[in-house]
Amino acid sequence: MGLPKIVVLGAGYGGLMTVSGLQKQLNHQEAEITLVNQNPYHYVTTKLHEPAAGTLSPEYARVPIKSVVDTNKVRFVEDRVTGFDPDKKEVYLENASDPLTYDDLVFALGANTETFGAKGVLENAHLINNLNSVRMIREHMEYMFSQYQNTEEKRDDLITIVVGGAGFTGIEYIGELVDRIPKLCREFDIPRDQVRLISIEAAPTALPGFDKELVDYAVQYLEERGVEFRLSTPIEEVTTDGVVLKGGEEIKAATVVWTCGVRGNSLLEEAGLETMRGRIKVDEYLRAPGYENLYVIGDNSLIINPENERPYPPTAQMATQQGETLAKNLVAALRGGSPAPFEFSLKGTLASLGRGSAIGVVGNKKLFGFSASVMKRLNDWRWFYLLGGLSLMMKKAKF
Amino acid sequence: MGLPKIVVLGAGYGGLMTVSGLQKQLNHQEAEITLVNQNPYHYVTTKLHEPAAGTLSPEYARVPIKSVVDTNKVRFVEDRVTGFDPDKKEVYLENASDPLTYDDLVFALGANTETFGAKGVLENAHLINNLNSVRMIREHMEYMFSQYQNTEEKRDDLITIVVGGAGFTGIEYIGELVDRIPKLCREFDIPRDQVRLISIEAAPTALPGFDKELVDYAVQYLEERGVEFRLSTPIEEVTTDGVVLKGGEEIKAATVVWTCGVRGNSLLEEAGLETMRGRIKVDEYLRAPGYENLYVIGDNSLIINPENERPYPPTAQMATQQGETLAKNLVAALRGGSPAPFEFSLKGTLASLGRGSAIGVVGNKKLFGFSASVMKRLNDWRWFYLLGGLSLMMKKAKF
Repeated sequence: MGLPKIVVLGAGYGGLMTVSGLQKQLNHQEAEITLVNQNPYHYVTTKLHEPAAGTLSPEYARVPIKSVVDTNKVRFVEDRVTGFDPDKKEVYLENASDPLTYDDLVFALGANTETFGAKGVLENAHLINNLNSVRMIREHMEYMFSQYQNTEEKRDDLITIVVGGAGFTGIEYIGELVDRIPKLCREFDIPRDQVRLISIEAAPTALPGFDKELVDYAVQYLEERGVEFRLSTPIEEVTTDGVVLKGGEEIKAATVVWTCGVRGNSLLEEAGLETMRGRIKVDEYLRAPGYENLYVIGDNSLIINPENERPYPPTAQMATQQGETLAKNLVAALRGGSPAPFEFSLKGTLASLGRGSAIGVVGNKKLFGFSASVMKRLNDWRWFYLLGGLSLMMKKAKF
Repeated sequence: MGLPKIVVLGAGYGGLMTVSGLQKQLNHQEAEITLVNQNPYHYVTTKLHEPAAGTLSPEYARVPIKSVVDTNKVRFVEDRVTGFDPDKKEVYLENASDPLTYDDLVFALGANTETFGAKGVLENAHLINNLNSVRMIREHMEYMFSQYQNTEEKRDDLITIVVGGAGFTGIEYIGELVDRIPKLCREFDIPRDQVRLISIEAAPTALPGFDKELVDYAVQYLEERGVEFRLSTPIEEVTTDGVVLKGGEEIKAATVVWTCGVRGNSLLEEAGLETMRGRIKVDEYLRAPGYENLYVIGDNSLIINPENERPYPPTAQMATQQGETLAKNLVAALRGGSPAPFEFSLKGTLASLGRGSAIGVVGNKKLFGFSASVMKRLNDWRWFYLLGGLSLMMKKAKF
C-alpha cells in the first residue's frame, strides 16, 4: 500500500500555510504531499494594488514557490487545475493526461470576480487579480497617459481613471493612485488637475462594514487629494469607453478597474457541489458538506460569524488561520488523533491609503495615518516571515 | 524706427545655436530677437531612441529653454508655427491673433517624416519624433508585453517589434532594444527567445553610406543579440496588425517603429517656396533662393557635398555648425560687415549600439565597441556644454 496522498490546490495564503504546516510536522514516510499551482510563484494578493498603481515593483509581491516549499517532502506541480471529481477523488490538470488522485484534497484555488450583474466587466474592466493582470493595469494606465499628449484634441477620458467599488481593494488601490498620479503627471507633462480619479460604490458608504470614524478619515484623506466619490451608485455596464451608471449617466474613462468583490471559484459548482455565491459553507473542520476528505479554505470557504450571523469576509487573515489549523488536523488524522474545530480569531484589519497613511482596527484600538501605515507594513513583513523566515522577510523589507 | 527684428523659428540644434550665438555677441540695443518654439523645452533629437526604448529617462533628453536662453536679450514665444509669408515677412502662430513680423527669419523648425510612398505610416507606425512620441513608443511596447501574459493564446505579435529602416536612427534604436528587451522579459516573465526584433530596410545594406567594415561589425553585434535583418525589402504598408512587405509578405507585429527617413517641413512648400523633397537648396549664406532675409538651416536645408555631388545627410552636427555661422553672419550684417560663406566640416560620425557599444569614424579613425561608445557619450556631453555650459553638462552626466 502507498502512502496517503494529500493534494493541495493553489499556493495562495491558505494553500501555502497548509503545505508549510505539513512539511514542518510530517516525516518522510507519513504522507505523499503534492502542491499544484499554475505559476511557479506565490503572489501576495493583499499587495497587488500597489504594482497595479505602479508604486511598487511586482517583484515585491512575488515569492518563488521553490524557495518556501521543501521539495524533499512536497512534490510541486506547475499546472492549471481544469476541474475535479470529489466522488472519484480525481483532479484534472491542463497539461497532464492522467488525473491526479488523492486521499485528502485541499481546495485553495482562490476566488473569481463578482460582477453583480453589471455588463461588460470581464470584457472591458481591468481586474486586480494576479501578477499578470496588475502589470497590465499599470502599463495600460501609463499608455493612456502617454497618448494624451499625442492626440490633437487632448482627450480627457485618456487621463480619467474609474475604480469600481470602494471596498477594501478599491480604497487601497485609489490610495496608491493618489501617490502615483502626481509623478505620472510630471513624467508626461500633464497638469495634475486635469486627471480625474473617480471611486464608484453601490453601497451608501465607502468601506461598507468598517467603523464610521475610520471611513470618514479615509474619505476625507482621499478627497483632499483629488478623489471624487460617487456613493449609492451601482455601475450598470463597463463599456470600451468607460462606465454607464444606474440611471443612464455615462462616465468616459480609458481606464476602469473593477474591485467590487469576489465570488467562489466556478470549479466548485462545476464539480456539482452546493454553493452560496460560489462559496462552500464548510463544517467546523473546513470540509465540504458530504465529503470527508474535501477541505475548502480561503476565499472559497464560507464561515458564519456567530456575533452577527453574517459570513466573515474572505481575507488573507482568514485563509492563513485556516491553513494553519488544517495542517494540524491533517497531521492528527494521519496519526490517529482527532481534529480540532476551526475558530477564526480576528487580529485586526488595516487598509492602506497610499505610502504614508492607513486606517484600521487592531484589537480594540482604532489607528489612523502614519502609525496605521507602519502597522500595515509590519503585517506584510509578518507574512513573509511566516512563509520564508527571517531571510525572506529581510529581502522583502529592502524594497 | 524700431530695432531690427530677428525671428528664429524652432529651438532645435540649429535654432538654439543661432540664438545662443546672437545673445553672446549682440548688445541690448542692436536687435530684437524672438525665439518661437511649441514646447517650453529643447529636446536632444539624437538621444530620442533611448527613451523610446526605455533605456533612458526622457528627462535626460530635455533642456528647459529658459535655462539656456538669456530672457533679457531674447523674447521667447511658446507657440506653434502654422505658416509664414516670406513676401509679407510675417509668421503665423496658433495662439496669437496678430502675425509676428520680422526683418530676418531663421527657419529651423525641423523635418517631417518621409514615408517613401508606403501606406499607413502616419496612421499606424510609431515615430521617433519628439518627447511625446517616444514616451508613447515606450509605453506602447510595454503595454503590449503586459498583454501577452493576459491573453489565453499568447499572441506572438504582441511581443514582435518591427523597426522600419536600418539607417542611423533605426540601428541606434534597435541597439537600445537589444539592451532593454531582456529586462522587459524578466519583468513580464516572457522567455527572451519568444520576442522578435526585426529590422527592415529597403536598401541592400544596413546603415547605407557607412563604411562596410563598421556596418558588418554593427550587423553582427545586433544579430548575435537576436535581431533579424531583412535587407533589400521595402515596406509597402503599415497596418494595424503589422507590416506588409513588397511582394505581399505580411509580418504581424503590435509595435512598428518607422525610422526610414525625413523630408523637409511642409510649411516651406505651403509658403510657395521651391523645395527638393521638401528641403530648400540654400545658398552659401544659408538663404532660400530669392529671399535675402530668409535663412533655412538644419533638416530643412539642402547643401551639396562637393566631394561626391550628393546632398549632405541632415544631422545635428550640420545644424549646429549652421547655427554658429548664421549667428556670426547676422551680427556682421547688423554692424555693416560682410557675411562668411558656410562650409560644413565633418568631425566624425558615431552610431550607438545600445549602452556598451558603438561604431563610428572620427577624423580618419574607425572606432568599434566600447571606445566608440565612450566617444559617443562625450559627444552628447559636448552638446550640453555648448548649450548650457559646465553646469548643464554635469547635470546631464549624472543620468
